[in-house]
Amino acid sequence: MNRTPVPASRTLKLTLAYDGTAYVGWQRQLNGLSVQARLEEALARLEGQPVAAAAAGRTDAGVHAVGQVVGVTLVRPMEEEALARALNGLLPADIRVLAIEPVPPAFHARYSARAKTYQYRIMNGGVIGPFERPYVWAVAPPLDVAAMAAAARRLEGRHDFASFQAAGSGVQDTVRTIAWSRVLGAEDRPAPAAAAPCGWLHAGTGRLLVYEITGDGFLRHMVRAIVGTLVEVGTGRRTPASVDELLTVRDRARAGPTAPPQGLCLVRVDY
Amino acid sequence: MNRTPVPASRTLKLTLAYDGTAYVGWQRQLNGLSVQARLEEALARLEGQPVAAAAAGRTDAGVHAVGQVVGVTLVRPMEEEALARALNGLLPADIRVLAIEPVPPAFHARYSARAKTYQYRIMNGGVIGPFERPYVWAVAPPLDVAAMAAAARRLEGRHDFASFQAAGSGVQDTVRTIAWSRVLGAEDRPAPAAAAPCGWLHAGTGRLLVYEITGDGFLRHMVRAIVGTLVEVGTGRRTPASVDELLTVRDRARAGPTAPPQGLCLVRVDY
Repeated sequence: MNRTPVPASRTLKLTLAYDGTAYVGWQRQLNGLSVQARLEEALARLEGQPVAAAAAGRTDAGVHAVGQVVGVTLVRPMEEEALARALNGLLPADIRVLAIEPVPPAFHARYSARAKTYQYRIMNGGVIGPFERPYVWAVAPPLDVAAMAAAARRLEGRHDFASFQAAGSGVQDTVRTIAWSRVLGAEDRPAPAAAAPCGWLHAGTGRLLVYEITGDGFLRHMVRAIVGTLVEVGTGRRTPASVDELLTVRDRARAGPTAPPQGLCLVRVDY
Repeated sequence: MNRTPVPASRTLKLTLAYDGTAYVGWQRQLNGLSVQARLEEALARLEGQPVAAAAAGRTDAGVHAVGQVVGVTLVRPMEEEALARALNGLLPADIRVLAIEPVPPAFHARYSARAKTYQYRIMNGGVIGPFERPYVWAVAPPLDVAAMAAAARRLEGRHDFASFQAAGSGVQDTVRTIAWSRVLGAEDRPAPAAAAPCGWLHAGTGRLLVYEITGDGFLRHMVRAIVGTLVEVGTGRRTPASVDELLTVRDRARAGPTAPPQGLCLVRVDY
């Protein structure tokens, strides 16, 4: 019986979590430290030669991830779990490799992805706990969550999201299919000592709202422009039905402001 | 009908949450920034004169709080909610005033306290998510949680905790009454995208253990020395029953190491 020989090179799918606070985003840039640069440095040290890492979602500066997917091709044989441990030993603690699995050579983290899911955290009113402050958008005026939820659902389906694209992006095809666009539900925060899964990391008195969106692709700043628009619905500045118009006018100026990056997280990529 | 006049001075009870990472602890020190100094500065700006703040628990450097209680005497009349907002406007975002309530003049945050409750977070095995890393003690070898839980319970009652006091503390009366000493229970972490209350802030694959202790008082480093000892029980280095001996020998060298500060949080003070 022949054992399958270790192939000359193999393609691996890495699942990453990172705290985006300290980074200029996923992608290498001249003006600061990127997650990609950190990961490629760690991979290069193990491989002994440069390695290119392609990610499913090019998260912006300050945006987080718990389910970012990165494809790499490696030559040096190393068992996946050992490789993950070695990478985590080389990476800073705010970037973690959660899992590594082999994939066919044709796998491409971005082009093979069927859907990506983002979540956005808003803390409404109250006092924001010290541990959650870097990971929420603090919105002071009381939000009408039912109205926001109604507006969010109107984005589901195949639409032209040009009104939600960062000005000057220049992407021509702005039609995307959104399978899911929901406010995950209001939750009155438990008392500090309550035995929530994250325990005392819950310390504030505000109300946490989580918006979740799944789509086959996203334009630049699209999720944050949607969230900025939903908050305008929540404050009564616009109606839930008004978002329908935004899907036809193709005008960034008509939608709400771009929500700040620290509330946004890439949570899952489906293939 | 006479309205009660605003008193010349009044005593207030402040409930504080803070991320201890950046601080030398609650108490003012010459070698760095303390939570007390930050709070007293903010209070002094509102009062126009120095204000002394006394806390229930003098948390050490790097230790957190979500239920620290501080007593202050203020002269300038200001409604409690407005005062909390003003203080939060002056304080850094890693220190938050959660609540303010009036108390009798005889109230003393420390001496009036009947009990204090601390929680300690351990992440066992797996990969520690980037968001939780600053708030856990990462313990790699698999821990026997049942053994740790059994050992923890043996500390309940009135005992001499001299073996768990920081060397050189010099406190003579080392007898304390512990009403509750429990491992809150193992919890296999959900998948990243699961809708846990703190959502994507849960990103790791490790197992979270939370130890909780309530007592009428605590010696210096006592909770951390207990946790270091419980982890030795968890790794099989000592038996649950061995902690009984520690309650009689009065020897710091016989107990386990002092667990690192970042897993510890003062969660509640009862009066």
